[in-house]
Amino acid sequence: MSTIGEKYQRCLEKMKEISTLSSVGGLLAWDQETKMPERAGNARAEQSAVLAGVIHERFIDPELGDLLHELHERAEELSDDEAVIVREKLRDYEKSTKLPAELVQELARLSSLSQSAWIKARMKSDFASFAPWLEKTVAIKRRQAEAYGYEDNPYDPLLDDYEPHMTVKELDPIIENLRKGLVPIVSKIIHADASIETDFLSRPCPIMDQKAVCKEIMGIMGMDPNASRLDESAHPFSIGISSPVDVRITIRYQEDNLVGSISNVMHEGGHALYEQGIDERFVGTPLGESVSLGIHESQSRLWENIIGRGRAFAHFILPRLQEVFPDALGGVSPEAFYRGINKVASTPIRVDADEVTYNLHVVLRYELEKALINDELRVADLPAAWNEKMRGYLELTPKDDAQGVLQDTHWALGMFGYFPTYSLGNLCASQFWSALKKDIPDVNDRIARGECATILPWLREKIHHNGRRYTTMQLVKRVSGEGLSASHFLDYLMEKYGEIYGIGW
Amino acid sequence: MSTIGEKYQRCLEKMKEISTLSSVGGLLAWDQETKMPERAGNARAEQSAVLAGVIHERFIDPELGDLLHELHERAEELSDDEAVIVREKLRDYEKSTKLPAELVQELARLSSLSQSAWIKARMKSDFASFAPWLEKTVAIKRRQAEAYGYEDNPYDPLLDDYEPHMTVKELDPIIENLRKGLVPIVSKIIHADASIETDFLSRPCPIMDQKAVCKEIMGIMGMDPNASRLDESAHPFSIGISSPVDVRITIRYQEDNLVGSISNVMHEGGHALYEQGIDERFVGTPLGESVSLGIHESQSRLWENIIGRGRAFAHFILPRLQEVFPDALGGVSPEAFYRGINKVASTPIRVDADEVTYNLHVVLRYELEKALINDELRVADLPAAWNEKMRGYLELTPKDDAQGVLQDTHWALGMFGYFPTYSLGNLCASQFWSALKKDIPDVNDRIARGECATILPWLREKIHHNGRRYTTMQLVKRVSGEGLSASHFLDYLMEKYGEIYGIGW
Repeated sequence: MSTIGEKYQRCLEKMKEISTLSSVGGLLAWDQETKMPERAGNARAEQSAVLAGVIHERFIDPELGDLLHELHERAEELSDDEAVIVREKLRDYEKSTKLPAELVQELARLSSLSQSAWIKARMKSDFASFAPWLEKTVAIKRRQAEAYGYEDNPYDPLLDDYEPHMTVKELDPIIENLRKGLVPIVSKIIHADASIETDFLSRPCPIMDQKAVCKEIMGIMGMDPNASRLDESAHPFSIGISSPVDVRITIRYQEDNLVGSISNVMHEGGHALYEQGIDERFVGTPLGESVSLGIHESQSRLWENIIGRGRAFAHFILPRLQEVFPDALGGVSPEAFYRGINKVASTPIRVDADEVTYNLHVVLRYELEKALINDELRVADLPAAWNEKMRGYLELTPKDDAQGVLQDTHWALGMFGYFPTYSLGNLCASQFWSALKKDIPDVNDRIARGECATILPWLREKIHHNGRRYTTMQLVKRVSGEGLSASHFLDYLMEKYGEIYGIGW
Repeated sequence: MSTIGEKYQRCLEKMKEISTLSSVGGLLAWDQETKMPERAGNARAEQSAVLAGVIHERFIDPELGDLLHELHERAEELSDDEAVIVREKLRDYEKSTKLPAELVQELARLSSLSQSAWIKARMKSDFASFAPWLEKTVAIKRRQAEAYGYEDNPYDPLLDDYEPHMTVKELDPIIENLRKGLVPIVSKIIHADASIETDFLSRPCPIMDQKAVCKEIMGIMGMDPNASRLDESAHPFSIGISSPVDVRITIRYQEDNLVGSISNVMHEGGHALYEQGIDERFVGTPLGESVSLGIHESQSRLWENIIGRGRAFAHFILPRLQEVFPDALGGVSPEAFYRGINKVASTPIRVDADEVTYNLHVVLRYELEKALINDELRVADLPAAWNEKMRGYLELTPKDDAQGVLQDTHWALGMFGYFPTYSLGNLCASQFWSALKKDIPDVNDRIARGECATILPWLREKIHHNGRRYTTMQLVKRVSGEGLSASHFLDYLMEKYGEIYGIGW
């Protein structure tokens, strides 16, 4: 007969063991992208698979399930924090135990094969060769949705993997308003008659010096140098290996794209600050985890776009950049720099898009993937549907499927439900920013003095420290006093780009 | 009813899972010493402990034990390779299951506390404050020896942890011959009237350039750059994370000690080449593991001392070093360089010792630790015994216990039986070298041309590829045609240093 306290402790130990083993998996992944010798690929895959097996075995441990169920039923005997921890972990447990092992294995196998097929198809811009794989993937994702179960829409449980608690019913009106507001904004901007110089942004800047500047910016953002690292990798990423004390980011440097490096470091740095803001008391529990991919992305976009591409930061950082890169940036005025880094151009490629057009790429993908999962669109009709939306939203037609429907890896990997988190991140970021400006009215003055890190206590208190206590919708409501909507983001764009492009809305 | 083949496969899977999880532990350790942010110390300790728990749980799995026992009994139904794999893994299994969990935990706890006490004691040169911890450690190591069981000497099963199959009965005569031969050689050399210049060896060499040279030397040794890394750490080490495809070495650079860096890289590189020489077919089994610490050290010492401090390599590498470090080494003749890097000086500190005096430091420790475990020496009498042997072997008295009995961490950590593997490494290295010179008579010409890597096929075939098929004694016999002895090493020293110091023996 153990007491409820003892049972909670036992449950906590099991949770923390799983979390610790997962953090080891994080190191395997980080090392693979940054340091691992080339020939170790297969050995690393084996290490990851064996470790994943151990983690899965512990995660579906029926003793853990029994403890979670009992503790959840007796939640009134727990503290508030404990009750939240049990509630969220039980949610994870139930979701993961709903999938039969056979389905999990099939998902893994299919995603690996489909990924290989996608790489080849994209290279040859040959959608037809990828279509059978995408059909299989859509079918298995539907099976996954059925296994999870759902009330309204089979897309809901898939979305929930990335954005817990979010549903199509909540998301649809938000995304629709975003689309309706954004399409005319984009159209006005791309047809505006404004001249914006950008040639100075592609002048060569030595990579060694770019690295030093990126390190400096991490410090300016308030990152703890004793709890972080900056490395290089083919695709930039951020990972909390042992958040909050070991959070690492990576950048890909290009000699002719200094602003790209700075955007990368601020984007990944925003993610990293969230991980460094985890409350140390709750490490290994849901209160020491992030809310969702959307909220994570809100932190990266806040730093990358709202701050990093804002006028105050542009004016602050330019003189320093001119010191380090006099040949590239000497003689450029702060306003020219600010305008240059905010030039809007419609492009067929999502990852090349600016902050104005970006979300239309996401809206398009959300609409299409939701239709696929709901059997309202056939895979064979996908390229045509893609191109039609591209014309409607961004006034362009991709020159081929490689530049169109085949450009992203997400669907090949079975990541249906991932795309909308990018836009959720942008919407949350601007809604948080509105709230932050009310609480810290001189925020832009601070940024202009390089005191960006002084906003960190606000982010910590309002967002980072909460872990998974609130859902995305609850958190946005708490922080901003109103429900999540596209309006703050649309207002932000109109104010900023109206001025840059001389447009009266 | 499964067939013997199926049982072997099942056993192999379990073995490989354990080996893979251990390799993940290797990455945790490497990262901790090279890349980990400072604040992650406790989190990393937790990761290592949890992973060790998982590995232990799988290692003592009774199903594994039953499979190993049955397969070993039916070894005649297995292939030769399979039989060796089962024999060696059963040996590991039985050894590890002989220790009660309570003793394992006590060993871990005591070694951590005793290590802290040792750090403080060494700082204040206060042996008395460390003595109670050492007494406890000796007592628990005796308990460990009893738990393992032994025939002749309680030191045997402790030695076996580092040098499997080796016993005091075999080792004593070898070490005694080494001591008897070496003491007069050292005495003659340190009293010889030879002038050896070394001032040019401590001239500043930029660390950036030292790194480049060390990388170059790795290539000259034949290390596969796609299966290795070179990094920095406080203490140089080599680790096979996923041998043979991911083997990493680290160096500590000092601006005024270029030759130190080169020695480090050749020492660690020798270890790394052994790990890269593992037969890929046997990864995860004892045939994909090294024989012992002694054989591992034979590879590092062969490259560091016999090759790296040999005349041929000195003549080959100096011109290249002079290109990179003209200020430090310009005008130094190859012979002056060769003599300089081989200067012999008796020092109280083992890790500072040259290849001539080094083994007397080891002999002294072996004799003392064997006496402690056999209750023939009291801990209280250890400092006096240490200093007396120092005078007898190296003609010097440490100025205090910090420079004497307290200098090494091994005893604090309970690593009794580790020290002799250093000398075994040196003896095996010179005995292997004698054999190698017979098989490759022009080896020194090759080295003088920088073609060191051409000896790699010989090392691979004779040593690396064998895994744990043979014991140290068997391997030496197979490679050199005679039993292991000190004579090759003593002959090597007399020939080399007789010439340098102008001594006729």
